[in-house]
Amino acid sequence: MKMKRVFFWFVALGFLSATVLQAQIPTISSPNKSFKAEVWLNENGVLTYSLSFKNQAVVKASKLGFVLSYQEKTNFFSDFELVKADTSSSFSTWKPVLGEESEITDNHHELYVEVKQKETGRVLGVRFRLFDDGLGFRYEFPAQKNLSFFVISDELTEFALTGDHQTFWIPGDYDSNEYAYSKTPLSQIKAQTAHPYNNLAYRLVSNDSLIQTPALMKTDKGLYMLIFEAGVRNFPVMFADVDRSKFVYKAHLVPDPSGNKARVQTPDVTPWRTIHVSEKAETLLSSRMTLNLNEPSKIEDTSWIKPMKYVGIWWGMHVGVYSWNYTDTNTVKLGITDWNSLKPHGRHGATTERVISFIDFAAKHGFDGVLVEGWNVGWEGWSGPFKEWIFDFVTPYPDFDIEYISKYAKEKGVKMIMHHETAAGVVTYERQLQDAMDVMVQYGYPAVKTGYVGTLSPIGEHHDGQTMSEHYYWVAQEMAKHQLMVNMHESHRLSGVHRTYPNWIASEAARGNEFNAWSAGNPPEHETILPFTRLMGGPMDYTPGIFEIKLSHYNPDNKYSVKTTLVKQLALYVTMYSPLQMAADLPENYERYADAFQFIKDVGVDWSESKVIAAEPGDYIVIARKEKGTEEWFLGGITDEEKREFTVKLDFLTDKQNYMAEIYQDGKDAHWDKNPKSYEIKKQKVTSKSKLKLKLAEGGGVAIRYYPINK
Amino acid sequence: MKMKRVFFWFVALGFLSATVLQAQIPTISSPNKSFKAEVWLNENGVLTYSLSFKNQAVVKASKLGFVLSYQEKTNFFSDFELVKADTSSSFSTWKPVLGEESEITDNHHELYVEVKQKETGRVLGVRFRLFDDGLGFRYEFPAQKNLSFFVISDELTEFALTGDHQTFWIPGDYDSNEYAYSKTPLSQIKAQTAHPYNNLAYRLVSNDSLIQTPALMKTDKGLYMLIFEAGVRNFPVMFADVDRSKFVYKAHLVPDPSGNKARVQTPDVTPWRTIHVSEKAETLLSSRMTLNLNEPSKIEDTSWIKPMKYVGIWWGMHVGVYSWNYTDTNTVKLGITDWNSLKPHGRHGATTERVISFIDFAAKHGFDGVLVEGWNVGWEGWSGPFKEWIFDFVTPYPDFDIEYISKYAKEKGVKMIMHHETAAGVVTYERQLQDAMDVMVQYGYPAVKTGYVGTLSPIGEHHDGQTMSEHYYWVAQEMAKHQLMVNMHESHRLSGVHRTYPNWIASEAARGNEFNAWSAGNPPEHETILPFTRLMGGPMDYTPGIFEIKLSHYNPDNKYSVKTTLVKQLALYVTMYSPLQMAADLPENYERYADAFQFIKDVGVDWSESKVIAAEPGDYIVIARKEKGTEEWFLGGITDEEKREFTVKLDFLTDKQNYMAEIYQDGKDAHWDKNPKSYEIKKQKVTSKSKLKLKLAEGGGVAIRYYPINK
Repeated sequence: MKMKRVFFWFVALGFLSATVLQAQIPTISSPNKSFKAEVWLNENGVLTYSLSFKNQAVVKASKLGFVLSYQEKTNFFSDFELVKADTSSSFSTWKPVLGEESEITDNHHELYVEVKQKETGRVLGVRFRLFDDGLGFRYEFPAQKNLSFFVISDELTEFALTGDHQTFWIPGDYDSNEYAYSKTPLSQIKAQTAHPYNNLAYRLVSNDSLIQTPALMKTDKGLYMLIFEAGVRNFPVMFADVDRSKFVYKAHLVPDPSGNKARVQTPDVTPWRTIHVSEKAETLLSSRMTLNLNEPSKIEDTSWIKPMKYVGIWWGMHVGVYSWNYTDTNTVKLGITDWNSLKPHGRHGATTERVISFIDFAAKHGFDGVLVEGWNVGWEGWSGPFKEWIFDFVTPYPDFDIEYISKYAKEKGVKMIMHHETAAGVVTYERQLQDAMDVMVQYGYPAVKTGYVGTLSPIGEHHDGQTMSEHYYWVAQEMAKHQLMVNMHESHRLSGVHRTYPNWIASEAARGNEFNAWSAGNPPEHETILPFTRLMGGPMDYTPGIFEIKLSHYNPDNKYSVKTTLVKQLALYVTMYSPLQMAADLPENYERYADAFQFIKDVGVDWSESKVIAAEPGDYIVIARKEKGTEEWFLGGITDEEKREFTVKLDFLTDKQNYMAEIYQDGKDAHWDKNPKSYEIKKQKVTSKSKLKLKLAEGGGVAIRYYPINK
Repeated sequence: MKMKRVFFWFVALGFLSATVLQAQIPTISSPNKSFKAEVWLNENGVLTYSLSFKNQAVVKASKLGFVLSYQEKTNFFSDFELVKADTSSSFSTWKPVLGEESEITDNHHELYVEVKQKETGRVLGVRFRLFDDGLGFRYEFPAQKNLSFFVISDELTEFALTGDHQTFWIPGDYDSNEYAYSKTPLSQIKAQTAHPYNNLAYRLVSNDSLIQTPALMKTDKGLYMLIFEAGVRNFPVMFADVDRSKFVYKAHLVPDPSGNKARVQTPDVTPWRTIHVSEKAETLLSSRMTLNLNEPSKIEDTSWIKPMKYVGIWWGMHVGVYSWNYTDTNTVKLGITDWNSLKPHGRHGATTERVISFIDFAAKHGFDGVLVEGWNVGWEGWSGPFKEWIFDFVTPYPDFDIEYISKYAKEKGVKMIMHHETAAGVVTYERQLQDAMDVMVQYGYPAVKTGYVGTLSPIGEHHDGQTMSEHYYWVAQEMAKHQLMVNMHESHRLSGVHRTYPNWIASEAARGNEFNAWSAGNPPEHETILPFTRLMGGPMDYTPGIFEIKLSHYNPDNKYSVKTTLVKQLALYVTMYSPLQMAADLPENYERYADAFQFIKDVGVDWSESKVIAAEPGDYIVIARKEKGTEEWFLGGITDEEKREFTVKLDFLTDKQNYMAEIYQDGKDAHWDKNPKSYEIKKQKVTSKSKLKLKLAEGGGVAIRYYPINK
């Protein structure tokens, strides 16, 4: 009886207050007025928002809120009344440690709304930031008596779209983002049906409408939209469950082993949920909203964080020339096996002799670093569901003389890059991390590539869940304490957190070049999509630079190939931003194409300016970048399976300065499948007034170096 | 077609070989011939064993084997043929670092059987060891090409009993062993029905026939039997699923979050599965088979491992006199909260002033150590499912001056005992462990009490599962590296692994005295059962010594009480073996009963000899022990809710030596409920020829110190 009366009373109050309070939450617009965001409490006290761009709706009324677990009242989405609504604006600039430009502008208008749940007294905040490139908002959970520690069973955030937009999507696999993109209308998403190029072992897509973010869309009216997030840290990655008839994305957080989503201790905030909207694809690519929504660097002295161009003992394993493991036996076990007693099979990649030859090659050609995979014991038995204690990170194979190698590298001025493949055995990796870092410090390795291949342990956790999100961040923090850089493979994708921990220099976290070595590979359009999706969150260690494109080079029976021309591999160093870039092919292949290799030696990896000249996701990208600390510019252009021509104005060059353009272009008969290694190199004097006509072959590219000359 | 033929061929071969091979596996007997164990392959090639005692069957034909996961052939229990069957015998003695006697004899006959699965080629070994007190056997997985890393989905080990034995059991809760024992016939086990004293929050008993081991039984013929295990390490704890009509125990391993049981990398072995059988309860209590089946100490220099009698800031929290937490707010968060800015509520237990008074008390009365709970920040918000980053183990509350306290303790010759309550947030405890140990080393804490209260994280793991088993062991190992001792609460129960890591000085891992402070508590019989069950695996930090038995002492509304007489609390120091013993009550209570307190001050904690004088599980226990390094003996006798008399021959005393017996006995009107604090103390000269008549009140006890005198 009493309960019922209370219930009616609340409903009545909710209805009244909705009317009153809607007027009390101000509408905000972006600095250039193109965006407007409205926020209100609906008739049930549900916090709701909408977004318009140039006076057309881009996100219709969309609900916000959560469902909780282990609470008497699990509803944390309705019955709210307004506590406060504050607006502010901010203009600032900041300098990334490494990046696509030396200075970034952060100009936004902000609305902070705080609401209180009438029955429970719980307070929820939502902070909206409107930029000229889109909207970001996050939930905030202030410290409060009625909400201390809690468990989120579902996040209800909606993105109600205005039509059946064309969408570039990958399936909602909790454990991998290494997929080729499908392009379909929203209504045609079929997440459980494999794209013909996709062939992953650890597929887990819980329902057919579940896709990952960033999700890129193009509307009928030609707007480019991206649903993504920024600042994922100690929180599950946000996927999108798509209502394929109503065109509504609902946030879907990657679950933990109990089926819940996240554990939160107030005060805390969620990552920012973001909506980029742009009339031009080029503008979308130039957006820095994701970075702007992340916190500034927590590392004070960043002088030790350096960009790196590197070679490594890696591609040779993928193409079968040599191996990670040292012996053919599988009867090995950490802590028991006497590695010196084992008979090597003779195909081990990471031998001292080979590493020395890579160091010599790196020194000769001016590379900063050498990555060596397969240096440490454990590769004989590295796979197995939930397996732990697979590798140690302190014991080299008997044929890898770490002391001699590190001394030799130091003499040659080359940095060694450590490798920590965890095989997703995370519990024991955490236990070994201090020892592993001590080895890096002892032998002078400034950076490490980590890997998380396989089925995760802690059992039931996922690569994109909260526990792992916190793990990656913790590893970055621990590495920072020792002034070590980290490049994570098979981690969740970056969402701008490398601004906060700039020693997290890159991640893989998407389908990289390696897939071309042993699978259907990546379609020619793949690299024209990644910069609009995965790279919107941060740099990717894509490992370009494959010159021997057909793997029959190694074995006539090997039918695999990279879907590229040789020149496109050069262009990727510019189009695929990363301050950590590998020259992935074997040294002997580079020596055979020394003239083309010169571009990889010359190209920058850290930039003071970037200019997107032309771009269309799935079709092409042309970008010019100025190397930080020099007056050199580099241009990269790539295309999908279509050949294309671009006429590029060189107005990005400094006025009244003469430049030499070294142009690497597809040969006239070049074709990604039929003749991928056909290329031409020419030189041409240019100025900022010049125009260049660029011809890209099917699956091809163009790469140009501009350097100042006196006349 | 082909498959079918193969199948028949195998069956035929299996039948033939069973006949032939049964003869090839020798029967073994125990050194004194009382036990016989037979092992054979049955008609399906299933390895099977049986056990007899004095020519009567105690375990009938019982199967062995496993089911695997993630394998093409998951059957790992049938289709075996014999590879080898080797026998051997061993007689040796060894000295435990701390223990119930200074030397232990290990005398056993061994049978090692190795079998090979015909279709898969996989090899399985089983090692049987037959002692005069029972049988132990374990599975062994040799390194082999056909079985490297694998996942066990079920262990099929059976213990086929011969009748509906009376059983002392606790329910098969994967996360707690803190239960009072039920005594029923096997057929009447109802694991999901609570014993009237049991009231645990985290109950998870997956089925009604599932009980924990050690499971104690008494047969119709008066034999005492115990089904248990030894050497649990990196393996789930073994529970027993009881067939209540056929009287067959089947091993039930505590599962991981995926529902599987264990991950194994060959070469490896399982814990020993053990069957104790004895005609006398006293003999069962004296068995050291569990220890004998564990590996010798892995710690070479054990000179720093010392027994400890300690007091602490602990019971005061349980009885509500003071608190673990420092403030009343719950809006605190590790790494954010400025603890110095918070307003203390004034009831905090671990204040510098109180700790100093405990150090003074310990120094005055000759205690080795002082435990302080609630010294470190985080107690304001320590509960919550799967919560992590609850405590740090380096930051004291503002009113706990660790530097001053540790210096003061050192001056007084008292050791501080560290406290690490993890609240089952294991992931972050592991990350903090190095720092936590550094604090212990820095401030000279030689030992730590750890705790795992609550719902575990890693999410979905259980306190008794493989992951946690490995965790406890890893903690003990890490502590050993720093010469630190550890006393684990809410861990899985010991199974003799403290022989291997003797710095694992004790565990709780059963229902301790603390339950009496805030629940129905422990029935008077409880402490007469624990030595036959939980303590068969190793020492327990039971925390005896409560003198203010009725909690109305603190608050007239408090109806809780310890089910004991005061003298029984003294006797527990002898009957409940542990090299780490707390005097759990408040110093002011001891000062009021200084004469009775003298026994706690005098009693030993490490022994050169132990003699079980009389024992019956659920009824009574009388034990005499000689203190290591002295000529003093201590006798403890306890009873359940019945009063009892014993006439004890003192033939354990040294011949021709006069002793003074200081006898602490229940007062004439003593009764655990009606008059628990009634006691008498008297002195009497005795020799080894003397007899003493001991009278124990209902729920009472007797405690005697014997020390040599000149005449």
